[in-house]
Formats: sequence, structure tokens, C-alpha cells
Amino acid sequence: MRLVISLLAAALCAGSAGADTGLEAEDLAAAATLRDQALRGSQAWAVVESLTTEVGPRLAGTPADARAVAWAEAKFKALGFDRVYLEPVTFPAWIRGHERAEVLAPFPQPLVVTALGGSVGTGAAPLEAEVVEFADLAALSAAPDGSLAGKIAYVSNRMVRFKDGRGYGPAVGARSNGAVEAAKKGAAAILIRSIGTSSDRFAHTGVMRYVADVPRIPAAALSNPDADLLSHMLGRGQPVRLRLDIAAETRGEYTSHNVIGEIRGRELPDEVVTIGGHLDSWDLGTGAIDDASGVGITMAAGALIGAMDRAPRRTVRVIAYANEEQGLYGGKAYAAARAAADEVGAHQLGAESDFGAGRVYALRAGVADAAWPVIEQIGEVLAPLGVEVERGVGSPGPDVGPIVALGAPWAQLAQDGTDYFDYHHTANDTLDKVDAKALDQQAAAYAVLAYLAAETTVDFGQLPVKPASP
Amino acid sequence: MRLVISLLAAALCAGSAGADTGLEAEDLAAAATLRDQALRGSQAWAVVESLTTEVGPRLAGTPADARAVAWAEAKFKALGFDRVYLEPVTFPAWIRGHERAEVLAPFPQPLVVTALGGSVGTGAAPLEAEVVEFADLAALSAAPDGSLAGKIAYVSNRMVRFKDGRGYGPAVGARSNGAVEAAKKGAAAILIRSIGTSSDRFAHTGVMRYVADVPRIPAAALSNPDADLLSHMLGRGQPVRLRLDIAAETRGEYTSHNVIGEIRGRELPDEVVTIGGHLDSWDLGTGAIDDASGVGITMAAGALIGAMDRAPRRTVRVIAYANEEQGLYGGKAYAAARAAADEVGAHQLGAESDFGAGRVYALRAGVADAAWPVIEQIGEVLAPLGVEVERGVGSPGPDVGPIVALGAPWAQLAQDGTDYFDYHHTANDTLDKVDAKALDQQAAAYAVLAYLAAETTVDFGQLPVKPASP
Repeated sequence: MRLVISLLAAALCAGSAGADTGLEAEDLAAAATLRDQALRGSQAWAVVESLTTEVGPRLAGTPADARAVAWAEAKFKALGFDRVYLEPVTFPAWIRGHERAEVLAPFPQPLVVTALGGSVGTGAAPLEAEVVEFADLAALSAAPDGSLAGKIAYVSNRMVRFKDGRGYGPAVGARSNGAVEAAKKGAAAILIRSIGTSSDRFAHTGVMRYVADVPRIPAAALSNPDADLLSHMLGRGQPVRLRLDIAAETRGEYTSHNVIGEIRGRELPDEVVTIGGHLDSWDLGTGAIDDASGVGITMAAGALIGAMDRAPRRTVRVIAYANEEQGLYGGKAYAAARAAADEVGAHQLGAESDFGAGRVYALRAGVADAAWPVIEQIGEVLAPLGVEVERGVGSPGPDVGPIVALGAPWAQLAQDGTDYFDYHHTANDTLDKVDAKALDQQAAAYAVLAYLAAETTVDFGQLPVKPASP
Repeated sequence: MRLVISLLAAALCAGSAGADTGLEAEDLAAAATLRDQALRGSQAWAVVESLTTEVGPRLAGTPADARAVAWAEAKFKALGFDRVYLEPVTFPAWIRGHERAEVLAPFPQPLVVTALGGSVGTGAAPLEAEVVEFADLAALSAAPDGSLAGKIAYVSNRMVRFKDGRGYGPAVGARSNGAVEAAKKGAAAILIRSIGTSSDRFAHTGVMRYVADVPRIPAAALSNPDADLLSHMLGRGQPVRLRLDIAAETRGEYTSHNVIGEIRGRELPDEVVTIGGHLDSWDLGTGAIDDASGVGITMAAGALIGAMDRAPRRTVRVIAYANEEQGLYGGKAYAAARAAADEVGAHQLGAESDFGAGRVYALRAGVADAAWPVIEQIGEVLAPLGVEVERGVGSPGPDVGPIVALGAPWAQLAQDGTDYFDYHHTANDTLDKVDAKALDQQAAAYAVLAYLAAETTVDFGQLPVKPASP
């Protein structure tokens, strides 16, 4: 599939020299200079180090959220962005309390768990109940109604490792929808095997959801070694009883902010190209790969463009989105604000880095056919970074999705996510997992993309695009 | 060094055919059969799975200690050992309570820590104090008296990875002796970078000690990413204040047991060859590599010997030692009991597996010169396992040390410990880190060693030997 796409891209590339993209040889040379500057050493790692050290975990709706917003505003200014501003984003504030699990019988021992984001707690007293294992969400959904009355449902599906993270989709339903399915069968709580690819003893959190008219039951993830352990116990055929003690709750609403830094366009300042990452993180780690890296890469790319002798024609807007983790709140608020101001049409191209700190290997886009030659030209400058143009595949980053749903064009710099889900949403998402040279390669790619998309005179075109995951 | 030893070994090996070791061709063939049986599939992994699943963490002195003793007794019987018995081992009972740490200023965020074994707690109220970093224990020791009054000393030395684990010795002094050195300078507590080689966010526990006339201060280890984080904060030059909240205490004495299974010798039952591992573990993980693996390997090796048509001349004794972790209590009690019964002279050879689940690559021994040809013959049977005989190096396992100090001969099957200290003494020491085929290779090596050492008529000789680490 990729080979075919590649060949197609090469054919288009060869043909693109003839298209009028408004990009001169000097623009492509300037982009190559940006690229090589970034490769020699960008600010990306320093930004990631700063955010993870000076703020650390920044769960949306907590005091650390406000510290992160203040940090981002100050960092954009320190990096020389022309204009730095905040836009409000309001969402329910979910608070994690304590979380403990243990096997009561037949083999008493503690288990490593973490509450899923949005989960309710177990109440005043810990929950003690027998566990029933299901191979996956479909098996749970197929259980007879009422068959889990008073029990803990346990879904043990395993996420499979792929470079592009496509093992996530088939596995994550247990996390997102498991509580609803289990509650429909009468379960008192749900446990899942973590949606992650490593066998380190970290539980992976992540958002889950409830629906109206189905009881809200506590939902938590076991670390993968603990899931193995529980399955081994259950495999002996005796009833396994657990105690689950989770304090977690949603306490009203909180207003955070998207933090935005701009490099103002020299000719068409009202037309914008956006890049960014999300500022919030889960609370277990310091959010280094998810998503200080996205923030660092795109801030560094924007800063490089801002330091050029001449700004590109269009405005380059770097967005540190609020609360991506709990439901793309930042991206939704951003899109709603643009729609309210009738500015969606001014959105020439949007991209988000939210897949960790691995190197970029592909450029993909959802743009009008007439704009594809620009994508090909950008691909030519990216080629020395090991980046291929791929047509007909991909999706915008999660926070770009909402404005894409309104018709805005998008680009994607696909990253190698082979080990992303080893760390994703765990305590182990820390700075040491980030390679500074890989960040520079990504900053180089984002700088080239943003600069050339802002320099071209071609309209990327409004088009209906269905975002897909990841 | 190893090459020289190898050549020497080869020379000795070639010469060993002439020595009278009491081992006939049929004995060597029987040993090779044992080896190949083990390689085809031993009970080792099943034993490790059983101990980690059915008992799990088994901190000495806790209720899980008693469950582990009952488990071991039952497992020896199930594996067909001739005689199974317990010997008492008494030691102070250290109890871990809660352990929390956080940065208060300038960058508030939680830190992952664990109390060191034997540590006192922080008392009724958490300790809040400024941190002072030292590159290593020597730097801490060189600080002026009183210079740390009311502060938290932080020793940030890094353990280096080696196949034979020799990075442990230079680093572990910070853990063992840091509290005493810090308290001498007036410190209120000590934190260390974990003595471990991975960058996973697990704190590594392990035993520490106090001495008379120096105040007992709380001692804890930061996970390595948290140590990085703290060093990054301190690198900014502002005072860093922490809150440390540790509940841990030593509550009187506890009597556990060494659990022993024997295959009775057919001609010289009072002469014994011992192999074993330690039954206790730290409480953070399930003690799969440290040391369910040692227990599993040696139980499986003993069971294979027990299943032979004819037992070897001497008794093969498999020992699951109590409380190795907190001070070799099981090994010391075992040696003291043998000394009291005047049985040290009956100890022909002792070996312990306590270096994880990595494959065996060398056979080493501390025996009389006259017995070296037997070691060479054992080496010949082990060679197809990738094991070389190395003379003049090595040490007995930790619990064998005390009887070796009384003059008993020892052997060592050196294991590849390249990744041992990634998991050692952490929550991540779980079953998934154990490779069943590697365990079979180790069980094969122990079976050959124990069988031939028990079958030979040669006296391994009483000799003073200085145990060294690891």
C-alpha cells in the first residue's frame, strides 16, 4: 500500500514543477535552511525539559493546568512570537483521588491499577466482588443481561504494537465503552488490561465515558503484568475476589485556555497556518511524550520561522491546546470560536503533533486537488529528513479534527509510534523517553511545513474530510 | 582475563581425564541426560509462576512470608523430594507503610519514591526541607559536619550496566551507608537515585543500615526519572524544597523458616551438596526474578535428580532461604545451625541462584585444588549450554556466604545479569520478565552441577574463602 502511494507521490512530484504554487526557488531554499537549522539544534528539547520540569503533570482542571497556561504564555513570549494570547476552554473538572486494588482470595496480594479518566469512585466503602474475565469488549457485550450482577467485569484484550499505532483502535473500546457495557449487564465495576504495548508494571489511564440511563460504575485499568497475574489466577478455576478502592469524581466546571503564539504574515496576515500540540497531560507522568513533545516541536518550529529575516506571507499560528485528553475540549473550543467569528475559511492548513517523540516519516494531507502540488513541493524539502509524501491516507491531529469537520484543510506529519504506547498515559511518560535529536528532526519537518504552507499563494481549499484515527 | 582463564581451563580440562574423580562415563552420560531433559522443559517456570501467582510479594516478617513458607513446603513435597523440613530463622520485622514525596517549591509536583528497607519513617508530620545534591557517597562524606542541618541529602550517583552486575558495588554504598553519612552531617533525611540501570519510573528499594550513636533518619530512593527531574530542578540554582512522608518501622522480631527439600544420597547421605535460592522478596514486585527464579531453577533441578532411577551418592539439598534481602538471615541461620551440629565438614559444595533469570555462562568454584578436576568434568557436561569454566574468580551466592566463611566449598553458575538491575527490587519484578527457556537452561546447569558434585567420591575440601560480590 505504501509503495503504491509512494510511486504515485513520485509521479506527482515530478509533475509538480510545472504547477504554479507561488513558491520560488528562494522560498524552497529558505525552507531548506530552516530544516537544516533545526537539525543542527532546535529549541524543542529545551521546551520539553522546561514544561516537564517546571510544571510537570498538568491534568486539565487542576492547579497545574493554570500553571501550564502561565508557562506557555511566558514561553511563547520568550521565544519571540509576535502575538501571544489566550482563548477560554471550559469543561468538567475530573479529579483523581486514591486508587487501590488487591486480590482478597484465593491469593491475597496487591494489584497496580489506575482509574480511567472520568470514572466515578467506589463510594464510601471499598468494593469487594468476584471477577469475571472477558477476552474483549465484544465478549462482554455478548454476556446475558444481569449476568454480572454485583461482579467486577474484567476485559483482558491486548493491544498490538505497530509503527503507526493502529493497534490502539481495536483495543481502546474496552477503555472507552467498557463501563457502559459492563453496567448494562449489572456489573459493579470494570477493570481492563491497560491499553498499552509494554510489559512494564504501569497502569495506563485514559478517558472513558458514561451514557444516560446506564448506571455509572467505577472503571480502572490494571498494569499489563497485573492483568497477566489476574488471568493466571482466574485460570486456576477458583473464584477470584478483589477489593477495589477508588476515589475519583467530577467537580463542576473549570475554564482553562488554549494558549496561542503567532508569527504574523507579511502579506496575508488574516490567512493562517496552524501547528501545535496539547498543553494538558494525564497526571501520572510528566507528559513528556504526550504531549510536551508536540508543544516543544511546534513552538520550536514557530520560533525558527519567527527568527527569519522575512516572515512568510500568511500567519503561522502555534496552538497549545487545552484539555485534549478528556475529550478534545481545546480543539473543539478553538473550532467553535473560529466558526463564531466566521474565520474557518481563513484556515489554510492545520496540523498537530500528538503522537510522541518519534521521528517523522510521512507527510499526508487533506487539501484540495489543486493544492496538492504544494504538498509535493513541501515533500521535496522534507525528503532529506526521511519523509515521504503519502496521498489518500492519514488524518489531522486530534485537536485539528473539529475545525477539519467544519471544512478546514489539514496536514499530518506521521511519526514513528512504535514505542509510543509503551509510555502513553502512564507514570513512565517522562523526559528521559525523549530523544533530543529526534525532536530536532520533527521541529525541522514542522518548520518546513508551516513555512511553505504560509508562503505559498495557493488556496488549500475548503473540503469536507472525515478524520480517522490515529 | 576471561580468555586466559578459558585457555587455562581447557588445559586443565584436557588433563582431567587422568584424575580419579570417581565419576564414570555412565555418570557423565547420566548428567548429560539430565541436562537435555531440563532443556526440553523443566518445572522451573511453573514453579516461578506458582510462587508469584499464589503468594506474590513476600516481604520477610509479613503474613505473606508465612504463606511463602507453606507454599515452599507443599511445593517440595509435590515435586517428590524425599524429605522436606523447616528450620527457624529469626530477624527484626520491618514494615513498610506509606511513602510519598513531592516538590513543594519552586516547581510543585509529585515524585516517585520508595523507602529503603530498614528505614524509619518521617514521624507524625511529613518532613519539609530543602534538598542538597551530592554526586556520590564520597562527596556526601566530605561535606562539613553540621552543614546539612535540617536538610535532605540527595545522592545522585548512577549505577552502570554490566553483564556481571559489577556496577552495583560502586553505586550501592549510597543506599547502604548514605543515611549514616548524611545523619553525621546533620541531615534530616536522605534520598538517593535508585541503584538500578533502567530509566523506567520505578524506585528501587533495598536494605540500608544504621549504626549506634548516629541519629536514625529516613532513607528513600527516587526512581531514576525522578532523580533526573530533581537534578534538573536543582540545576536552575534556586532552592528546592520537598515534602517527604514515610511511614515505616521495625516492629519486634519475627521467626520465619528456611524450607529445605532433600534427595537422599544412596551411599553417603550425610555428605551434602546444596543448591537453592531465597524465598523472601521485596514487597514492591512479585519477586519473579529476585528470587522466585532461583527457587524455581533449583527446585526443578532437584526434582529432576529425584526422578532418576538411582540417586547420587551424596545428598542433594535444595534450600529456599528465608529473608536474604534484609541481611542474609536465612544463610546465616543455616550456617549457624550446621556449625552447632558440627556438620560444616559434611558440606561438599554449596551454590545459590540469586541473580535473576538470565542464562548461565560460567562455572566458577572455590574448592580444594585436588577437586578441580571434578569441576572441569562438570564443565565438560555444561559446555553445550554455553558455559565455560573460569578459575580464580567468582563468589558463592549470598546465602552460601556464611557457611563458606566457615570453610565450606562453593560453586557459582554465573548468570547473564545485563538487565537484572533494570527490575531488581522494583514493582516491575514480575513474571513477564522471566523467559521459560532461559530458566530451563539454568535448571539444566544446576541439575548437572548438583548431580555430579553429589556423585563424585572426591572431597571438595574445607578451605578458607573470602566471598566477594556479587
